[in-house]
Order: sequence, then C-alpha cells, then structure tokens
Amino acid sequence: MPELSNRITTLNNGGTDGWDVFYKARRRVAAGEKITELTIGEPDDKTDPEILEAMHQSAIGGHTGYAAVPGTPELREAVAKRVAAQSGVPTTSDNVLITPGAQAALFAAHLCACDAGDTALYIDPYYVTYPGSIRGAGAVPHAIVTAPENGFCPTAIQLSETPEASSLLINTPNNPTGTVYDANTLEAICGFVRDRDMWLISDEVYSTQVWEGAHISPRALPDMANRTLQIGSMSKSHAMTGSRVGWLIGPEEAIAHLADLAIVTTYGVPGYIQDAAVFALAQGKGLEDKHAKPFERRKNIAMRLLSGSKVIQVIPPMGAMYMMLDIRSTGLSGEEFAHRLLDERDIAVMPGESFGQAAAGHIRVAMTVDDQTFEQAISTLREFAESL
Amino acid sequence: MPELSNRITTLNNGGTDGWDVFYKARRRVAAGEKITELTIGEPDDKTDPEILEAMHQSAIGGHTGYAAVPGTPELREAVAKRVAAQSGVPTTSDNVLITPGAQAALFAAHLCACDAGDTALYIDPYYVTYPGSIRGAGAVPHAIVTAPENGFCPTAIQLSETPEASSLLINTPNNPTGTVYDANTLEAICGFVRDRDMWLISDEVYSTQVWEGAHISPRALPDMANRTLQIGSMSKSHAMTGSRVGWLIGPEEAIAHLADLAIVTTYGVPGYIQDAAVFALAQGKGLEDKHAKPFERRKNIAMRLLSGSKVIQVIPPMGAMYMMLDIRSTGLSGEEFAHRLLDERDIAVMPGESFGQAAAGHIRVAMTVDDQTFEQAISTLREFAESL
Ligand SMILES: Cc1ncc(COP(=O)(O)O)c(C=O)c1O
Ligand SMILES: Cc1ncc(COP(=O)(O)O)c(C=O)c1O
Repeated sequence: MPELSNRITTLNNGGTDGWDVFYKARRRVAAGEKITELTIGEPDDKTDPEILEAMHQSAIGGHTGYAAVPGTPELREAVAKRVAAQSGVPTTSDNVLITPGAQAALFAAHLCACDAGDTALYIDPYYVTYPGSIRGAGAVPHAIVTAPENGFCPTAIQLSETPEASSLLINTPNNPTGTVYDANTLEAICGFVRDRDMWLISDEVYSTQVWEGAHISPRALPDMANRTLQIGSMSKSHAMTGSRVGWLIGPEEAIAHLADLAIVTTYGVPGYIQDAAVFALAQGKGLEDKHAKPFERRKNIAMRLLSGSKVIQVIPPMGAMYMMLDIRSTGLSGEEFAHRLLDERDIAVMPGESFGQAAAGHIRVAMTVDDQTFEQAISTLREFAESL
Repeated sequence: MPELSNRITTLNNGGTDGWDVFYKARRRVAAGEKITELTIGEPDDKTDPEILEAMHQSAIGGHTGYAAVPGTPELREAVAKRVAAQSGVPTTSDNVLITPGAQAALFAAHLCACDAGDTALYIDPYYVTYPGSIRGAGAVPHAIVTAPENGFCPTAIQLSETPEASSLLINTPNNPTGTVYDANTLEAICGFVRDRDMWLISDEVYSTQVWEGAHISPRALPDMANRTLQIGSMSKSHAMTGSRVGWLIGPEEAIAHLADLAIVTTYGVPGYIQDAAVFALAQGKGLEDKHAKPFERRKNIAMRLLSGSKVIQVIPPMGAMYMMLDIRSTGLSGEEFAHRLLDERDIAVMPGESFGQAAAGHIRVAMTVDDQTFEQAISTLREFAESL
C-alpha cells in the first residue's frame, strides 16, 4: 500500500478512548442485554410522518435529479427568512449554503477560513468532532480550556492569551455542557474576533432548545455579520438527524466560494430532502417546540431527583439535550465513574473526558430516552454515586 | 470580512468559461424558449418508483436517525458483493465506504492519498470537477494531456514524463470521451503506478454502460487491490443522481481512516437512502440494463445520422452517456461552434474546451433526451456543421 496522507492518519491524534464506554454499551445491547443508553445526541423522537410524506411526494413528483448545488431556491429562501427572523440580521438566499448536515457545514467553514497550517481555535469542553473537523481541514486545533467555575464559558483573558489564529469556533446552546452564552460572554468573544480580524464559526444547531436565558446569535452583534459563519441544522430542531440537512450562513462572497467548494466535496443535498425541510420549516414554532419540550421536561425531572445530593453537583442545563454532572467528589474520574455505572448498573453515559480537559471529573447525560426510563436511570445514578 | 482561505478562492483557478454555453441555454429555457439541452450528465430517466417506495418504507419504518457513518452493514455488504462479482477481486464490507455520491468519494480519495502541496495527476480530457476536487483537497493538479489520435488514452511515454505525484486519477468508461480503456492501456497505467508506488484513483461510475469492449476494473490487475481507490455510484447506473449515494473501495486500513474522515466531512448518508440503494442493487442487471440501453440506442442513432459526414468526425463512444464530435475541420473552436449552434439552431452542447486542452476543437453531446428529440437534434447539428 502506498503511504496514506498525514492528514488522514493523524485525524484523531491517536485518541478515541472517550468512546470506550459507548462501544462497550453498544456491544452489550447487541448481545441482547438491557442497557439504558444516555450517550449520544440522537433524539428518541423519529422524524414526523408528515415530513416523510412530504419527502415522498417530492420524490415521486420527480425531484430525483441533481438539485441545485448551493441548495434549492425554496430552501435557501426559507432558511434565510428563519435566520433573519431569529436573529434580526438581514439575510437573503445569497447568504445561505445548504449542506448535508451541520457536520459538513463545520468542515466547509474551516476550509473557508483556514489554509493548511493555520491555527483554528475552539472551546473545551467541545462536541467530539471539533478537533477532527479542524485537522481534516488541514488546520491546527488549539483549545481554549474553560473552567466549570465560569460555567464553562471562555473569559476575555483566556481569549487574549491565545496564539494567532484564522478562526474561533463556538457552540451555544452548548454540547456537552448545556450552557447558553449570555450577552457578556458573546460580547467578549465578538470583541476578540473583531480585534484580531478573524472568522467566528458559530455552531447554533441547538438554537430551538433553550430553557433559561435566550439564544443570541453572534451574527447579530455589531460588525459581526461580515465575519461570522453561522451553522444550523434540521437534525435536532426537527428530529431529522439521519436526513443530513443543514446550512451555513455567511457573507455573500464567502457563500459564493463555498458553493464552488460544495461542487467538489458533496455536490449538494437530495432535492426531495430539501423539499421535506421546506415543509418542516413551514410548520413553524409548534413543531420545533414539540421536539424541544421532552428535553426540558427531563431536565426538570433530573434537577428534582438530584437536588440535595452531596455527591453529584448538577450544572443546570440552560439548553440543548444534555446535562453535565460534576462527580469529582466521588474521587473517581469521569471515565472510571462511567465504566462502573455501566458495569454495575447497566446505565451508559459519556465520560466528561471525551469532551476535553475542562470536563474531566464530570459525566454527560443525554436526555434521549422516554421520561419514565429517564427518571429511573437518574434515580439509580444518584443511588450509585452515593453508594461509592 | 476577514481573509478567505487561498484554497477556496483558487479552487477554480479563475476559470469557469466552459460553462458559458450551458448557462446561456439555461437562461433561455428559463425565459420560456425551447432549447434542446445536450449538456450535462443527467439521465432523462427519473429514479424508478419502486426504489422510491422502498425508500419511503424504510423512512416510515423508522430508519431516520443517524445511520452508521461508514455505511449500513447491508449496503456495504451489497456493494462488496457487486464489486467482487464485477471485478473478480475478493472484497468485503471492510473494503467499502459508503459516500454521498461519487463526488464525495473523489474528494475523500484525494484527501486520503495526498497531503497539502502534493501533486495529483489526472487525465485530460476530464470530468469538469476533477481539477477542483484536487485543489479542494489541498493538492496540486497536473494534467496528462492525451491526443485524439490515441483515442484520448494516456501512453506509457506520457506517463513516464510526469512529475513525482501521490496519485493518478483515471476514469473508464470515460466522461467526456466515451472511451473504454483496454487491457493494454490499463496495464501501462498500473505498471506506472506500481513503479512509482502511488495511489490509483479509479472513477468507474459508468461501469454499467459499455457498448464496445468490456469494463476492466484496474483493481483486478496484479498487485493493484492494495493501491487502488475505486469509486462507484448509484447516480448513473440506477438514475439516482439526486440521491447522492456512492462508494469508495480500498484497502481495509485506508477505509478505516476514511471512515474517520467521513465523521468530520459528512457524517454519513441517510439510512433510508442506503436502504433504497440496497433494494435497487438487489434488482440486478435487469434494472441496470434498462437505464443503460437508451444511451446505446441513441449512440447508434447518432452514428447512423453522422456517418459519411465530411465535416464531423465521430469518436465512436464505447461507453457512458456522451459522444465527442471532432469539428476541427469547420475551422471553429469547440466554444465558437457550441455558441453558434445554440444561437442559430437552439441546440446546447458542451464545448470540448470545458474538459481540457485535449478536447479543443471538439464538442461533447450528452445523449440525455428522448430518442426522437435526439434524432432531430443530431440531424440539425449535421446540417448546421455542413452549412458552415
Ligand atoms: C454541537 C453539535 N454540532 C453539530 C452536530 C452535528 O449535527 P448534524 O447532524 O446536523 O451534522 C451535533 C450533533 O450532535 C452537535 O452536537
Ligand atoms: C466521471 C464522473 N465521475 C463522477 C461523477 C459524479 O457522480 P455522483 O453523482 O455519484 O457524485 C460524474 C457525474 O457526472 C461523472 O461524470
């Protein structure tokens, strides 16, 4: 075999250890065991049948050929309207590139902002694919390690101490922490990005899932629309994870180049899936709330069940579908805790260490099982932690 | 706006001129004019309703969540079996990565074979996205300019004169020329690749459309399975262009790394589309022939109508859905001819110059309209050429 590129062999920097617990749980499930999986960001809701019906009608109606690569005019328009309404920033179709999911948008954004060897900043704790997305784009990932004491938000001082970089990637509402950045945090971030004349890559896939505070899109801050690449997706807001449809919002000139890039990376998104997304967005806030509410409900269940625990500190999630539990007082690492919880109580959670240094000694609970199962699992989790 | 990356601004090397005729035709169609478009590789067949029904059943059956990123076990297995049967090379699921179309596979293959700055070879004339795919992957494209006299095949001498490179990209059956590489050509190519210890990237998306000779997969040649990244797609064989589903076949170790890469570039292909592809492949050769036959029929129509012309030399297509016409004796360039044919006869074809230097003075005719319209268009084209 000829040599594989360095890029591809160093993509994960040698590490995927954080996934041990996840894979161990999956193996046990495959072997027929009953495990409560609170690991990944897959909503327990399926895509609504009406959305699938709209998709089917589009397909049998003949929308099966190559669709316009930057997105169909209808979906670009619908997304532009939604983004404008949510953020108050004037947005047209020319600011919108439709992508096969937010992940493809994250990758494209870094290809757009960074040349090979450029530094790309990101915030720790982070969504697992972030460092790999940056490396895959040929850039060098540099983490800003936040502190639990600061609600896992970066501080102005931390930002000022970073090396020269082409981009900063943020995510609010946040996976894995559930933090929603407030105006102060966002102003510090935007000030930093403006001063350094960098790109801000803003991952807003959980924008419809906010329980406390409000989602502020950084693109709405002064002088930011021209330096923000905003990322959205139908995955979480409409339980369409498998359909792979999302978007990138940016300055017209950037989007024009990104459309050329899309020709060589993906050649667009199926037309019938784009039509289904148009249908889903047209259902408005009702449908989004329907898919968001279960997580808010489960967050409240967990807050109630864990309140008063001397062993588990809840970081109250302000949004998204996860909660972080600080289990440092058990003396175990997040990995040790998660392995023992799986081995001894058949409950799978993600060790905080999977999401970076800042979340060491924590575990992340995905609230993606029905209320009753969830309630049971959280009770067991508390009992387990307090038995240690 | 901060600086855009060099990668993205230089993707097209400043040129998209070959598409002038295409866009001019599209504008006239949009304005309500009747134009016969023989430009792009979009089959006039739509995806079969039974395939769409299988897709719908999978979706309403609940296959709407994140699918396994390297591909579902069922589709990887079906593709492995098909590739093994077509080429005779032992192939398992671990040799298969499912991608959102051949285009994504082309991009991934270059990311796998080349680091930033490496040279990547390709054959001219070429499918339009090739140089951009290589640039997008951060590599440096280097064309091997073939000659019409050699049936647009590269010669051993030409190959030996190329600079050091990490990969060579070939395409048989070929777009735009319709050439199917014979054993001699493939042996020369494979010998060259082995001697230089390079990757061969083999785009075989037209493998089911062969009218003369036989499709030979270079992966079947001695010592090639370990250095070939073979690309296939449902787009042309099953009229599923818009569904974006294809694959990359390679050594297990390469595929394992490519699966990690897929996590950060696309995060897989919709499960219901993969299920539809499994269904389509299970229909066997009958369905493939149904989608291939119209192009063979139209090729025969054109050969008959153009035979004996003193002005147009047909390069008899051995496969794929295009034919190249040598119009150098008119004294016009391919671009001039195509513009005048559109302006004066309402027929749109692609100038050979869109596909590189080698095809200058030629036009490419896509055989993607119904037989009657096609027959009419070819007659008019001949009459036009002979009137010049
Ligand atoms: C923060 C964040 N960004 C992006 C994604 C990927 O979303 P998509 O399914 O649209 O690719 C996820 C999925 O879990 C996520 O948590
Ligand atoms: C030679 C060649 N390779 C790849 C492709 C892209 O195929 P897909 O639709 O699977 O991305 C085409 C499409 O026209 C093609 O002609």
